[in-house]
Amino acid sequence: MKLPHCQELITKVSKGVLYITLNRPHKKNAMNLALVNELISVVDCVKDKRSIRVIVIRGAENNFCSGGDISGMNFDGASETHDPMWLFNRTFGKMITLVNSAPQVVVTVLEGVVLGGGIGLACISDVAIADINTKFAMPETRLGIVPAQIAPFVVSRIGLMQTRRLTLLGESIYGEEAKALGFVHYVTQNQDELETQLKNVIVKIMLCAPEANALTKKLILQVGLVEHEQLLDEAASYFCNSLKNEGKEGTAAFLEKRSASWIN
Amino acid sequence: MKLPHCQELITKVSKGVLYITLNRPHKKNAMNLALVNELISVVDCVKDKRSIRVIVIRGAENNFCSGGDISGMNFDGASETHDPMWLFNRTFGKMITLVNSAPQVVVTVLEGVVLGGGIGLACISDVAIADINTKFAMPETRLGIVPAQIAPFVVSRIGLMQTRRLTLLGESIYGEEAKALGFVHYVTQNQDELETQLKNVIVKIMLCAPEANALTKKLILQVGLVEHEQLLDEAASYFCNSLKNEGKEGTAAFLEKRSASWIN
Amino acid sequence: MKLPHCQELITKVSKGVLYITLNRPHKKNAMNLALVNELISVVDCVKDKRSIRVIVIRGAENNFCSGGDISGMNFDGASETHDPMWLFNRTFGKMITLVNSAPQVVVTVLEGVVLGGGIGLACISDVAIADINTKFAMPETRLGIVPAQIAPFVVSRIGLMQTRRLTLLGESIYGEEAKALGFVHYVTQNQDELETQLKNVIVKIMLCAPEANALTKKLILQVGLVEHEQLLDEAASYFCNSLKNEGKEGTAAFLEKRSASWIN
Repeated sequence: MKLPHCQELITKVSKGVLYITLNRPHKKNAMNLALVNELISVVDCVKDKRSIRVIVIRGAENNFCSGGDISGMNFDGASETHDPMWLFNRTFGKMITLVNSAPQVVVTVLEGVVLGGGIGLACISDVAIADINTKFAMPETRLGIVPAQIAPFVVSRIGLMQTRRLTLLGESIYGEEAKALGFVHYVTQNQDELETQLKNVIVKIMLCAPEANALTKKLILQVGLVEHEQLLDEAASYFCNSLKNEGKEGTAAFLEKRSASWIN
Repeated sequence: MKLPHCQELITKVSKGVLYITLNRPHKKNAMNLALVNELISVVDCVKDKRSIRVIVIRGAENNFCSGGDISGMNFDGASETHDPMWLFNRTFGKMITLVNSAPQVVVTVLEGVVLGGGIGLACISDVAIADINTKFAMPETRLGIVPAQIAPFVVSRIGLMQTRRLTLLGESIYGEEAKALGFVHYVTQNQDELETQLKNVIVKIMLCAPEANALTKKLILQVGLVEHEQLLDEAASYFCNSLKNEGKEGTAAFLEKRSASWIN
Repeated sequence: MKLPHCQELITKVSKGVLYITLNRPHKKNAMNLALVNELISVVDCVKDKRSIRVIVIRGAENNFCSGGDISGMNFDGASETHDPMWLFNRTFGKMITLVNSAPQVVVTVLEGVVLGGGIGLACISDVAIADINTKFAMPETRLGIVPAQIAPFVVSRIGLMQTRRLTLLGESIYGEEAKALGFVHYVTQNQDELETQLKNVIVKIMLCAPEANALTKKLILQVGLVEHEQLLDEAASYFCNSLKNEGKEGTAAFLEKRSASWIN
């Protein structure tokens, strides 16, 4: 598979999984505009490729991401649309929105620090795995800055209640609390466990039919945005579509006690 | 009280409680279209009967419900409205939507397996009690099918974050985790505790005034659907309505240190 | 600073913090209309004063608030707008809505009882600290009354799922469960710990820039109310505004390893 050439990311495809590594370890993988644009290109490039069933996002050298790279910021820009700083900031939100709706199952592997924009990415992953010592924080307001493209995704992930506290106090939390608050699904005790958990998650995803998963993800992302009865009407069409394609194979495999065709 | 005649359900009314048992134990109470339509009829039949204050839903022979009965599925149907499979699927959502807004307090007793459509029902109960060993899962995507009429109710119940994981991995969880994730309110250690918890819940519901409960439930179901100020305006009217009827009796009983008239 | 004169509240300003004490201890600080109107006046009075960065709300004599004062209720009022009881009730919702959107960080200190309207206030605080023995309940329906101006804020705080149970059963919960359900952020073991936690929270808030905090709070309160892309557009403007004012100072202070100007 031909992926866009990247400077700030390392990409690899193996057995239906696209692995993306944020690769600016000298800055704990702080995201500059180039990195953000590369993420957009790569995820967009595979959006119609159902042979890619999982996207794993992690950071180089055992840190996930320390946020936006403030060394690239120009503090005297205007606050209007098309101002370079406005666009710089807005592009983060564009990227997170795009990854949020990727038809693949998106898995984030959260080690070291997960700060600011790093939290934004974690918040839209379908499965998030964190080490017990991973640090999560939105320190923006301590720097006098609004976590503008991040906070809305945090509210969607963990609710307004804890977002108030974390954004307005700039407090740090760690693995177990991140799980309790609803940032992450799994917390592991060390690097070995982390890699094992990642493998197990991928195995489970591969048990699920790719088109059924893509339709299911599309459906659940619409809850609250599309009127209830209308959404259930659409959902019934998704059901029928899945039933006559993958569903026919899946239920046949189940009754015949064999693996379905999409399982390696 | 005259209830609709049922083939797939057992119904009983006792002391203000309507007990409904899903009764297809040979299929772990998988729901076919007949069962779904019977549930609709029974719940609809009591919707204006305020003498019924609680609806308890459980499954025969210590299983709640194993989902939709796939043996009734026709895999070659079209995905258009009025297609029989479309209607079959859509009727589940219709039933869950109806039970969700029943003016009575709906209690689910969750034993054995709670799969697919069973989770949908659990997700709209006002009080859910599960055994510690009860298994919850949405295995649909492993069969190549979209959990179409279920997933939206799961998002409303436990949020998008855990719904992503459970639908896209098909993972099973058990009693304690189901409580931590927000599926159920109470987890009990064995059958005796389960029945005791159910009795205690019913006792507490009976302390609350039936009309006040019905109005309160109507109110909280509208949050997010009706504009905030408008909802609070309506709520103030609910308040005044309750105050001059049950509220007069309830506060008098409180001041006179006696039981209110609605307490047996 | 000149604050409105109050009969039912004690107010004090010290080092950027406005302390408000509900002061009707003979009624466990039950709120009458006068108290509610005073709260509105005081919070409204400081809304453009960025020198006030924190509002701490607590109750006199180790109780937070026992709800609305039912001794002031007239049970025979009509349920129409402009009826005195309608207005009495609606004013609670007006007050809670106002405090919810205060640009300052609102901290509630929850001791003793937090009932009915007291829960409403707790539910809109940015940071809530409770003692382990603090009792939370919405007993309204046991009195035959709808928790009309409260329940919608409870749904927004802890979700529909637990709101169903708490409103329809009238059940009480205590500190640890209140934290697990998402009412409060911190639970302390005794009075000393409570005061220490309050001090620590204030210290952390003071590390954050006041305007960045106000903009961040404004932003997160709009999630779900403003369309996603439009909200991110606005957010990018907030970002640019913060960057060229407090952000310039904050990042300079960070790079120079000194305290920012807003830290005492």
